[in-house]
Order: sequence, then structure tokens, then C-alpha cells
Amino acid sequence: MRVDADRLRFEVEARDGAARAGLLHTAHGPVETPAFIPLATKGTVRGLESAEVAGLGYELVLGNTYHLFVSPGPERIAAAGGLHAFMGWEGPLITDSGGFQVFSLSHGGVAYEVKGSGRQGGEHGSMVSIAEEGVRFRSYRDGAELFISPEVSMQVQAALGSDIALVFDECTAYHADRDYTARSMERTHRWLRRCLDWHRREGPERQAVFGIVQGGVHEELRRESAQAVSEAGVDGIAIGGTLGRDKEEMAGVLEMTVPRLPEEAPRHLLGIGEVDDLVAGIGLGLDLFDCAVPTRLARHGVALVPDPARRFRIDLRKSGREGNRAPLVEGCPCPACRNHDRDYLSYLSRAEELTAVRLLCLHNLTYMRRLVAGARRAIAAGAFDSYRGGILAGASPFA
Amino acid sequence: MRVDADRLRFEVEARDGAARAGLLHTAHGPVETPAFIPLATKGTVRGLESAEVAGLGYELVLGNTYHLFVSPGPERIAAAGGLHAFMGWEGPLITDSGGFQVFSLSHGGVAYEVKGSGRQGGEHGSMVSIAEEGVRFRSYRDGAELFISPEVSMQVQAALGSDIALVFDECTAYHADRDYTARSMERTHRWLRRCLDWHRREGPERQAVFGIVQGGVHEELRRESAQAVSEAGVDGIAIGGTLGRDKEEMAGVLEMTVPRLPEEAPRHLLGIGEVDDLVAGIGLGLDLFDCAVPTRLARHGVALVPDPARRFRIDLRKSGREGNRAPLVEGCPCPACRNHDRDYLSYLSRAEELTAVRLLCLHNLTYMRRLVAGARRAIAAGAFDSYRGGILAGASPFA
Repeated sequence: MRVDADRLRFEVEARDGAARAGLLHTAHGPVETPAFIPLATKGTVRGLESAEVAGLGYELVLGNTYHLFVSPGPERIAAAGGLHAFMGWEGPLITDSGGFQVFSLSHGGVAYEVKGSGRQGGEHGSMVSIAEEGVRFRSYRDGAELFISPEVSMQVQAALGSDIALVFDECTAYHADRDYTARSMERTHRWLRRCLDWHRREGPERQAVFGIVQGGVHEELRRESAQAVSEAGVDGIAIGGTLGRDKEEMAGVLEMTVPRLPEEAPRHLLGIGEVDDLVAGIGLGLDLFDCAVPTRLARHGVALVPDPARRFRIDLRKSGREGNRAPLVEGCPCPACRNHDRDYLSYLSRAEELTAVRLLCLHNLTYMRRLVAGARRAIAAGAFDSYRGGILAGASPFA
Repeated sequence: MRVDADRLRFEVEARDGAARAGLLHTAHGPVETPAFIPLATKGTVRGLESAEVAGLGYELVLGNTYHLFVSPGPERIAAAGGLHAFMGWEGPLITDSGGFQVFSLSHGGVAYEVKGSGRQGGEHGSMVSIAEEGVRFRSYRDGAELFISPEVSMQVQAALGSDIALVFDECTAYHADRDYTARSMERTHRWLRRCLDWHRREGPERQAVFGIVQGGVHEELRRESAQAVSEAGVDGIAIGGTLGRDKEEMAGVLEMTVPRLPEEAPRHLLGIGEVDDLVAGIGLGLDLFDCAVPTRLARHGVALVPDPARRFRIDLRKSGREGNRAPLVEGCPCPACRNHDRDYLSYLSRAEELTAVRLLCLHNLTYMRRLVAGARRAIAAGAFDSYRGGILAGASPFA
């Protein structure tokens, strides 16, 4: 670990078992943890203005290096004064490295088997080659061949000017075998060192860098990766790659990984953000979570509700909501719940009206925000176990 | 004309030439005129919450009887307490009669030739029959055969509970010949009497009814229709049907029609809302304008700007905006102009991000609102000619 308070400072304010409540001080201000991080994939949280995202209580959003690299390109964003200025977001920003997208979009989903190198992409694929130097792939926009290496990823993230950059990694899939996962992890560790070397020489002084632990579902690999990343001199640690085939296996992978991370580092679980996973992850001592699910669900007419039997979801496009005068969630302060009932929201969603997407997006993000805020308060009060138990049993975060 | 202050009262506060500035008092509050009326086609202004529409300064929105009849149906809206309660809109509401949609959707657009009756719809068509009794057509949702007559239209609008209902009419197309247009107009006048008869017997007491002048581009027909509608005992008068093939012919039709309408009636020009048409219409003494254009343009990446040479539009999806740091319109208080530049808005529009649709929708509606508010002030100050001249020459409504 490196410590550089000017770049990033992480303060653990309270602990409750393994769970922590903290403050992450970035170049663009503080972030209360545990935090859920909405995705501003292409330079906007879909359908919302930056000011609205801040208005929901979010302090940190995540931009996607891969998408922004393909379009509009780092030069145009740098010319605008960086991603903060480009998208009109004044708070802290984290950017992923592009690794996840290069691999998952090239192979048709992260669960798709990633085995050989030099493999042509299939129907969804655009991978040209994976080599020690970096990754060649085709742009999903115009088919142009593009190249990302650890250095290119850091260079792009430097141009974006995010507060926190993630190192370039290979995101291994569940179906990759142990041998491939091990070799890929070792390359990811070499890429980690190249990212840090480039960043030390040429990265923005106030940009922090998080390393990424890989190793699939294999305990020795996760352990080895946790150690390698912890010793590499990063500002924080993310957990990437496959976490298994189900929630049980995910819990196992996290339990074998998180305790091996240094206490003083902020810990980011990449791409996870279902309600139950979030409270489970907080309980294990994770601090940051980013996930497309809440906003993606909104685009498909699905709202978050305190109903564990239905995976905390209600699909408003299904019939049977006619005449239902109840709000989505009693006590939720979002405009969908404050101003409308399930009858209308269900009608709007089935009619595929933009207003439905927007209202559900506001609701789902309000829900996630309240969920982590509640967890934070519970940790400070030494009552996290009971908070987690309540949420998993169907208690409302707005109760 | 009938006068019933409890239902509707129209107060002309100032005149400047033929232009009027007024107040339309409805059961749900007053509307300053001239007014632009955003469309809440299916029970929402696309992408915006009701509170936001009100926040933009709009007092009156228009719901579409045809769409709401097809889905979710008048029973469900009545069960919610009417359209106001269903969509969470507390201000005045106007509903069209369904006539325009039945005819234009069935014939693939209002410009499509509408000639015979009993004609099967074509590729876009779903018309089954047009007869004295009413119109049979197929639902665009599930192909079910539906029937709208003057009585059904008024019954549906009664269930919606709008402040202003429009009578059921046949909307004749430009390519209909004089003979068809005349026969159609006469039937529309018979339908008008049936609408009013039904409404007198069974309509909501506080719902006003506007008649619709038809007659195509033919002076004698427009004159005859203006007289028939004026004498029928309506609360206000709308101008419908084809207004010609271009703006010049539209001006001719309006010039032959508007002066024949009673001074004391509010006058609504149906479906017209381009910047130049609006100031021209206000100059001729029209008070209300509804139009899908500002919100539809937003969905296609087009923003309103004070540029008469480009039809007051800028297409942000066209290339060449990269690095342009100017706002869409200097001085515009909308979030698109206040927080973003053309470079970012163009990127977002080309990326087809929902945020772009929303930002442009807010911009275009802010633009239209400011345009009519400026016209209203100019009329009160006796300076409407110079205001109209300025707008047509490229003056900004935000100047």
C-alpha cells in the first residue's frame, strides 16, 4: 500500500464485526462508505442529469474507460477539461480500466468461456488478440481495430482525469479452468506493475490507483492475488473476475479474499449491487460497490422493493397491477413513490414510456442509496447484524 | 357560443392588432394565453414528471383520447379518479377527441389521402369503416376492432374528466377533394351536434367543450364551418383539418377562418407549434397551440435555436459540434444550456443516451414556453409586431 493523503485518504470511522463505516477523501471531495456507485457508463447516468444524481445523495459515480475510449475518445474529453467537466459532474469520479468490457463484450458476456489467446470473437465478439503487450479488439461502433494495454488504459484514464483509476486486468470467466485462470492472473499482476510504473511516471498527481484481485474461484489464487496486489503500492483494492456461479459460491470467494486485504485500504467489489449481495458484502468488510443492475432494471420496468422472496424486485410490466393504489414502496421519498401508484407506474412501463424509465431509475437509485446509508448508520450504532438480518427478511430501508 | 363561467371563462386582457393576451379560467385553474400546450399523449409528457412540466411554467397539457381509449382504457382511468389523478397532474387538462388519430393513424399520416368510406387501411392502416354513426378501426396494440362515435368520444372524455373536451370530427387530409371535404365537413357538423347533445345530457358539469372548424383549404367551406361551430353553443373553437401544403397556404386558411370566429371565444389551432407558425398564429388572434414537434424533435436529437435559416433547429446528431463550448442558446435557463455545451450534448445525442432526450426535451419546452410568454408580454405592451419581427429575424426569446 502507498499512503498519499493528497491523492486519497481513507478513514475508517466505525467498525461492527468486519463491517466498516468510513470516509474516502478524494481530490474532488469525500465519499461516505459503504457506498453504492451508480454507473455513468458513457458519461451520464442514463436519463439523469449529474445534478440529479448528486441530489439523490450520491457522491461517487463510475465512468467506463472502454466506452469512452471508443467514443467520444480521450482527446475530446481531455479538451473539455476532463470527464468531470465534460459531463458536468463536480464530485468524485472513478473509472474502470476497460479490462472488464474488452473481455466481456468480446466474448458475449463475462460468463462466456475465455480460454485461448489469439481467438477470434464470435457473434458478439470483437477480440482480435490477447497478448502480453495488451489486447487488440474491434470497436463495436465501426469495426476499427483498437488496442488497449496497461499503459494505454492508464493514459486514457489520465486524460479522463478521474479521482480513482483502476488498473488494467484480464477479467477471467467462470468457465476458465484453473490453469488458464492462474496464467491470466499472473499476467494481470505483471500488467498491474506496468500500470503503476506508467502512473508513477506520467499519471496525474491527484489521481489514485486501485489494484484488482483476480484468481477466479480458487482459494490459493485469490490468496496469491490478494497478496500481490496489496504489496504493489496501490491506493485501494478492487475484487474482480468471476465470483462463482451462485450467491453461495460468491460468498465463499469473498470470504477467502477479503480477510487477506490490508485493513487500511478501501475495498471495492466490482460489478456487484443486488440488495442481498450488497448487505452481505458490507458485512464482510467491503466499502465500495458499483453495479449496472438498478439502472438496467429500471429500463426494463423493474423496481426494487423489500421482498426477498422475489429477489427484491417487482416487474411492473407483468399484468395484475391494475387498480393497485399502493406506492412502489411505502415511505420512499422518490417521485415515483411520492406522486404515483403501482397502477399508473405499471401502465407507463407497459406502454414503454420514457417517463417510466426515468421514474424507476430515480426509485431504484433512491432505494440503493437508502440501503447503504442505513447500513452506515447501523455500523456506527453497532447494529449492523440486525440491519442486515432485517433487510434479508424483507424490512424496508425506508422504515 | 354558450357562456358558463363555472365551466370556463375566457378573459381577454390586452389586444394588439388581432393578437390577444388573455386568461382562460378552467375548473382546474387559469391558463395564460397565448399558450403552447405540451402533449401528454399517453398520460405523460414523454420523459418528464408532471411536476417538472409545471415547473417549466406550463399550465395546460393535452391528453390523447384515442391512445388512452386503446390503453389503459377509460374505465381504469376513471377508477383512478380521472386523468388528473391518474397521471398526477393538478392543473388544467384538455383532451382531443380521438378524431385526428383515428383518421391519421389509419391512413398513415394526416397528409395521406382520405377519400372513400368503408376503405381498408393500408400498410399503416387499421380503418375498418367510416359511417354516419361513427368509425370502426383496429387497435394498433392487439388488432381488436374498436368503435368511436361522437357519443363514445364524449363518454371517454367524460371518464377522463378533462377540463376541456374536443368534439369528435373527421380530420380531412390535403389531398381530399372539395366534394369529399364538403361532405365530410357536413358530417362533422352533425357529429358536433351529437357531441353537444350527449354532453348536455350526460357530460361532467365543469367540463367545457370546444368545437372544431373543418373545411380544408376551401374558403367557403371554412366560412360555413366557422359559422356552424360558432352557432352550435360551444365553449371555445378549435381549427382542425388540413391547413394546406405549405406555410403560405396555412396563413391563407387561417386568414380566411380566424376573423369569422366570435371574439369572445378562446381559439385553439390544433397540432401546430413550429416557432414561426406560432408567432404567425398569435398575430392572427389565436390563443392556444398544441404540438408534438418540440418533444418529438428532442427524441431525434434536435434542439430549438433562434435561427430562422435553419427552421429554428439544430440537429445535434450531425457531426461538426466537437469542441464547441457554446451552450445551445445563450441565456436559456434550462439544464441543457445552463450545465452543458454543444460538444457534450452532441456526443450524448449521437450516443442515443436517454439523458440527451431528456435534456433536449427540457430545452425545447423551455424555448416554447419562453416564446409564448414573450409574445404575451409584447401584446400587453402593444409591441407584438416588433416581437414577431424579431423572432422571425432570429432574435432569441431569451434575449
